[in-house]
Amino acid sequence: MPHPLDRALALQPEGTHPDLFVGTSSPDYWNMVGPFGGTTAATLLQAVLQHPQRLGLPVSITANYAAALTEGAFRVRATPVRTNRSTQHWTLEIAQPDANGEWQVNTTGTAFTALRRETWGASDLAMPQVRPAREVPRLDTGPAKVAWVSQYEMRPVRGGIPARWDGGGTHSESLLWVRDAQPRPLDFVSLTALSDVFYPRVWLRRATPVPAGTVSITTYFHANEADLAAAGTGYLLGRAVGQQFRHGYFDQSAQLWIEAGALLATSNQIVYYKE
Amino acid sequence: MPHPLDRALALQPEGTHPDLFVGTSSPDYWNMVGPFGGTTAATLLQAVLQHPQRLGLPVSITANYAAALTEGAFRVRATPVRTNRSTQHWTLEIAQPDANGEWQVNTTGTAFTALRRETWGASDLAMPQVRPAREVPRLDTGPAKVAWVSQYEMRPVRGGIPARWDGGGTHSESLLWVRDAQPRPLDFVSLTALSDVFYPRVWLRRATPVPAGTVSITTYFHANEADLAAAGTGYLLGRAVGQQFRHGYFDQSAQLWIEAGALLATSNQIVYYKE
Repeated sequence: MPHPLDRALALQPEGTHPDLFVGTSSPDYWNMVGPFGGTTAATLLQAVLQHPQRLGLPVSITANYAAALTEGAFRVRATPVRTNRSTQHWTLEIAQPDANGEWQVNTTGTAFTALRRETWGASDLAMPQVRPAREVPRLDTGPAKVAWVSQYEMRPVRGGIPARWDGGGTHSESLLWVRDAQPRPLDFVSLTALSDVFYPRVWLRRATPVPAGTVSITTYFHANEADLAAAGTGYLLGRAVGQQFRHGYFDQSAQLWIEAGALLATSNQIVYYKE
Repeated sequence: MPHPLDRALALQPEGTHPDLFVGTSSPDYWNMVGPFGGTTAATLLQAVLQHPQRLGLPVSITANYAAALTEGAFRVRATPVRTNRSTQHWTLEIAQPDANGEWQVNTTGTAFTALRRETWGASDLAMPQVRPAREVPRLDTGPAKVAWVSQYEMRPVRGGIPARWDGGGTHSESLLWVRDAQPRPLDFVSLTALSDVFYPRVWLRRATPVPAGTVSITTYFHANEADLAAAGTGYLLGRAVGQQFRHGYFDQSAQLWIEAGALLATSNQIVYYKE
């Protein structure tokens, strides 16, 4: 039995055009009105990774959520627009037919892949000092209101979903240990999904559950295949914080470290919120 | 005489297709091997702003630098892929003909525009406490090695370009007051360009001037037209910091505040560096 994430991200080539793939939305990662955005972004990256002309490893991906994916089949297009000696730029989209059979784009994106070499390196964003994952109680996610949450083992260190929606929020930072609920070795697609695992910062900041939804997410990867292998099925420490909330949108800055302290991914998103 | 930025960003419709524009690269903003990336991103946004079907104000833009623009004319394509009731998603590209007359894409991107309403708001990223702009000496940018630097009045508070390239760097944070050298009221295109005004973090972190270049930049706007009008021709405080440097790439997190403290834009980029 494949892992639920592998089922959700399964893509088949569509016909003989190398840029086109078909997939099917997964009930396992369903959110309120469509799939979990993390798996949608990961689906875009999956198409890049499966493309026969792909060069190198993912360095960055941007996914824009233009409309909700609906249940059923979708088409992914991943086009290597420019291939240089050691780098490659991609444009990405997901489309589904509407009630009239017309293809409608619901997700756009871009990605960048590259051959990565050993170089000088450093981090200016150290992992926060927190209790080890095994000492932090696991969030009870079942029965969750939305399916995707149950696909993750979450151990909130601080900044968990407010226990009382009393309008008394004062900050928007969350820290949690997280990994796939059903163990699965970390790879680029699961890291992409994990970079969107944080609930809306506006809920925490206001202690008010207003409607909110990600509009665009960009994730940068600071890992090669050896770094991912070292992460294995272990916990990642995730941090997310809102920066500015204004005129119906806020931005979120997020990071994911392995337990040993290496920063594997940094991610930013802009999120709609109501009122 | 128009402002140099307006000359650099001047676009004309190409034929009758509303998505196509033509422009010409500007010597005023030339960098080492092509235009300053900030003006390239701003050129993408300019096409969105001039598009007859544009809805609302810019909320986010991502620009990917796939290859250097060369001197001379270029074509910009800005396509409103999906228009909802109060939001709109765009795909963007810049292309130039190669020596054989074949069109080659050198820049890709996406943007998101929206009608922005007054809502609850807050900031979780306060402006750093620094000396006022007028008390900070202006950086002598002339004769600069590259033209674009002279288009900005920069007053580095800390984290300026290392005075000695002695390999002794210890951090990657810079703070500077900045505005157009020739006064020009702030707007979305100048804010886009300003979000790329920081020199490569790896130079500061290592105190070593290795080759480096931005691969992809994403900027989120936290301003409406009234906020921009309030900024006027005043200084912005810019902050930039590297987060992770590894395997030939680092990411930079950046922010721009007006003097009165409002955070107008947050921006992230991923940057190539050598060795």
